[in-house]
Amino acid sequence: MCLTDADLNQITKETAMTNPVCVILGAGPGNGLACASRFSAEGYRTALLARGEATLRALEADVPGARGYIYDATEQTSAEQVFARIRSELGPPEVLLYNASTRDFGDIEHTSPDAFEQAWRVNSLGCFLAVKQVIPDMRQAGRGTIVIMGATASLKGAAGFVAFAAAKAAQRSLAQSLARHLGPQGIHVAYVVIDAVVDMPASRTMLPGKPEEFFAQPRDIAESVFFLTRQPRSAWTFELDLRPFGESW
Amino acid sequence: MCLTDADLNQITKETAMTNPVCVILGAGPGNGLACASRFSAEGYRTALLARGEATLRALEADVPGARGYIYDATEQTSAEQVFARIRSELGPPEVLLYNASTRDFGDIEHTSPDAFEQAWRVNSLGCFLAVKQVIPDMRQAGRGTIVIMGATASLKGAAGFVAFAAAKAAQRSLAQSLARHLGPQGIHVAYVVIDAVVDMPASRTMLPGKPEEFFAQPRDIAESVFFLTRQPRSAWTFELDLRPFGESW
Amino acid sequence: MCLTDADLNQITKETAMTNPVCVILGAGPGNGLACASRFSAEGYRTALLARGEATLRALEADVPGARGYIYDATEQTSAEQVFARIRSELGPPEVLLYNASTRDFGDIEHTSPDAFEQAWRVNSLGCFLAVKQVIPDMRQAGRGTIVIMGATASLKGAAGFVAFAAAKAAQRSLAQSLARHLGPQGIHVAYVVIDAVVDMPASRTMLPGKPEEFFAQPRDIAESVFFLTRQPRSAWTFELDLRPFGESW
Amino acid sequence: MCLTDADLNQITKETAMTNPVCVILGAGPGNGLACASRFSAEGYRTALLARGEATLRALEADVPGARGYIYDATEQTSAEQVFARIRSELGPPEVLLYNASTRDFGDIEHTSPDAFEQAWRVNSLGCFLAVKQVIPDMRQAGRGTIVIMGATASLKGAAGFVAFAAAKAAQRSLAQSLARHLGPQGIHVAYVVIDAVVDMPASRTMLPGKPEEFFAQPRDIAESVFFLTRQPRSAWTFELDLRPFGESW
Repeated sequence: MCLTDADLNQITKETAMTNPVCVILGAGPGNGLACASRFSAEGYRTALLARGEATLRALEADVPGARGYIYDATEQTSAEQVFARIRSELGPPEVLLYNASTRDFGDIEHTSPDAFEQAWRVNSLGCFLAVKQVIPDMRQAGRGTIVIMGATASLKGAAGFVAFAAAKAAQRSLAQSLARHLGPQGIHVAYVVIDAVVDMPASRTMLPGKPEEFFAQPRDIAESVFFLTRQPRSAWTFELDLRPFGESW
Repeated sequence: MCLTDADLNQITKETAMTNPVCVILGAGPGNGLACASRFSAEGYRTALLARGEATLRALEADVPGARGYIYDATEQTSAEQVFARIRSELGPPEVLLYNASTRDFGDIEHTSPDAFEQAWRVNSLGCFLAVKQVIPDMRQAGRGTIVIMGATASLKGAAGFVAFAAAKAAQRSLAQSLARHLGPQGIHVAYVVIDAVVDMPASRTMLPGKPEEFFAQPRDIAESVFFLTRQPRSAWTFELDLRPFGESW
Repeated sequence: MCLTDADLNQITKETAMTNPVCVILGAGPGNGLACASRFSAEGYRTALLARGEATLRALEADVPGARGYIYDATEQTSAEQVFARIRSELGPPEVLLYNASTRDFGDIEHTSPDAFEQAWRVNSLGCFLAVKQVIPDMRQAGRGTIVIMGATASLKGAAGFVAFAAAKAAQRSLAQSLARHLGPQGIHVAYVVIDAVVDMPASRTMLPGKPEEFFAQPRDIAESVFFLTRQPRSAWTFELDLRPFGESW
Repeated sequence: MCLTDADLNQITKETAMTNPVCVILGAGPGNGLACASRFSAEGYRTALLARGEATLRALEADVPGARGYIYDATEQTSAEQVFARIRSELGPPEVLLYNASTRDFGDIEHTSPDAFEQAWRVNSLGCFLAVKQVIPDMRQAGRGTIVIMGATASLKGAAGFVAFAAAKAAQRSLAQSLARHLGPQGIHVAYVVIDAVVDMPASRTMLPGKPEEFFAQPRDIAESVFFLTRQPRSAWTFELDLRPFGESW
């Protein structure tokens, strides 16, 4: 038997189509990679969305069956085009994990209007744009899960996190509105409040003296994210906090 | 081979001792039974604590390996004696599920001081007493999980739930204090906010017209309770809400 | 003219009856005294309720027109008898300030069940009992204000405040239920979240090195308490936090 | 005596400079007008900022000594130029009331990205921009009050208010960051949670059958806003809710 490239393409596509699709928006070496690995191990085809091509290539190499898509979370055109490609290449998403975030430190006097705006665009507007893309398919299927990765800052505006906290507060409010609107349609929206420093190379560099147990492990966070997608719909969780056992809070 | 009663007792005890122990306080036909079944299926020896002997006998018949203990959640003596028996008969608890609760409806003018106090005794003082019993063993083991079954009323004092809401608010605050105190010692404390009517014979009688999907299913709640005991300690959840997909909130 | 004791009694009573009555439950040298002085300066007859006679005599000497009543906040009989005397001697209360509180420090392992219970009795049950006493008169008048002095601990269960925090959480929930039930009847219920150490001799002794501006001044707290009783009913406040400008929160 | 225009100008300016300045951003016929009147009656020179010239002229006619400034809350250039003019013409602001807001109804499927963004620009970015303008003068004076008019939506993301709620949640978080950063410098930041429909011509038209007591009266809201600026700094309020006595909440 001799298969042409077109045949192979078709087979790959059909295989893809039989497995559920998980879109991870804001894919990086921490929670993004861990969640992609977790969903991949469960048979999901994962679409990894990030701004940088090098990041995507590295993740694709690490996660079996993953496909990377260059994506700017804050641009509606990017959202429309990339989600159309995902639908066409992998199939309609069953799971959307919104993991795009920012790291903005500074009080109002050390934060520019642009930085204030950019934090909101990545954490809040970007989530709004992506969710709009997946609603039609999820509603048609009568199912689907949207998990949004939040932070403790969504609950408290500290002096030195004026941009990040306001952006995360908007994101959490958005998640609530989505959960209330989409729940009755069978679409599960959950908000994960990470109350920890996640263990990543960058975190270790930034906090050199800390022991391992100071950090939240991405693989452990991924476990809870995956669990949320498995909850039966008579008992869904909207909000879940995650922190290491020794965290002071 | 001929085994005396003492032999049999010893064997039973040793078997018990090799499997982890889960104490379910406030065992009844809803969440208590479902959680007991879930933990039992995972190999736990379950101790079922409730006031009524008939209730306990029925549960023992339904849950393999479960043992019932008559228990008054509001009495310190009961706490001391029963937990001593559990330790001796089953071994030190690895999991404590505090499921004792009340159903008090009424505004302040339709609630007596006694009813106000009783709600607090069952939901808050009883939890305090039981947790005190399991701390020493859990600390010695450097592990353990305490799950407290709360309610939305813990977050909002409605006019017509003056006793229940105040009792649940105290319970939630207690759970926070426990989580902060015991977490760094390796003991995971979690609070489950049930935002639903749980599907039980009594609920169906009270709300005769409601469709099945109106209710939260105990087996689905049990799934999340069990998951909490499985979270790795780098990413523990303190608070988890659970509600049916169609719930208005 | 020669007046008998009965005449004088009658005159005093009539004078009293023409001015509104403010009951301060948990009267002491801090917020209780300051609020009594503030309401007294506005023409209120103040009833000062506390456990200790010496405390009451000292306060009576400081506050013009104030009358002390020995009171155990946790006893229903005390509530019934003392409020009956107040109604008879001063008239029906227009304002109730619930200022009884406790100071319990300690985590669960350093807190006895009795201490846990006593904190709840003073902060929560006592408030329930007192409010029951003033509802009938306030409803008949179609007006009245109940101000409950709370604390930040009502919002967060810290490890080392297990008794105090749970008691204050219950108190805040109770206040919410009361506000929702009594508001539509014209009775204003407000909860004041004190997020500070109040300047009192005891506080200064406990924190010897602190500058004056570290503390919240009772006279300044009293200003906000009084303002709450003056809010027009189209724009009532339920919850109000108070903290010194330099407080870290 | 004969005064030239320049003389008169100089006199007006000097008079202005001796009285404190209150800037009301988002001045309109409801809370803006009521607050302007309240501060004006207390001797403040009020600067009224709004987009529409007609609105400003009408308000100027109603509020003695008020001066209108055309202002786009979402534009940094507007912020810089108008606040420079206020400082020059009236003097440095002692009070800033941020009252700009939006009315966006709709769930995510009925809300465009532009509407989602505009709600954030008016409620959150505009507040950020204006506060940046008043910080230097307030810090130099070691005093000042910034009051931000919020809404219940800041606390809860309802399905049908996806844009408004997320924008108000961001605004409330911003207010918290500001309060924590500026409080220790003597600048009081407060957030007012309006839990009501405010009585304005537009509200009456929208809700024709409602009785007067259904609405919160702007003059009553203004009373609490003014009170916040009078709190002594040992007992400042950050958050204050306001609702009519009969409101269901």
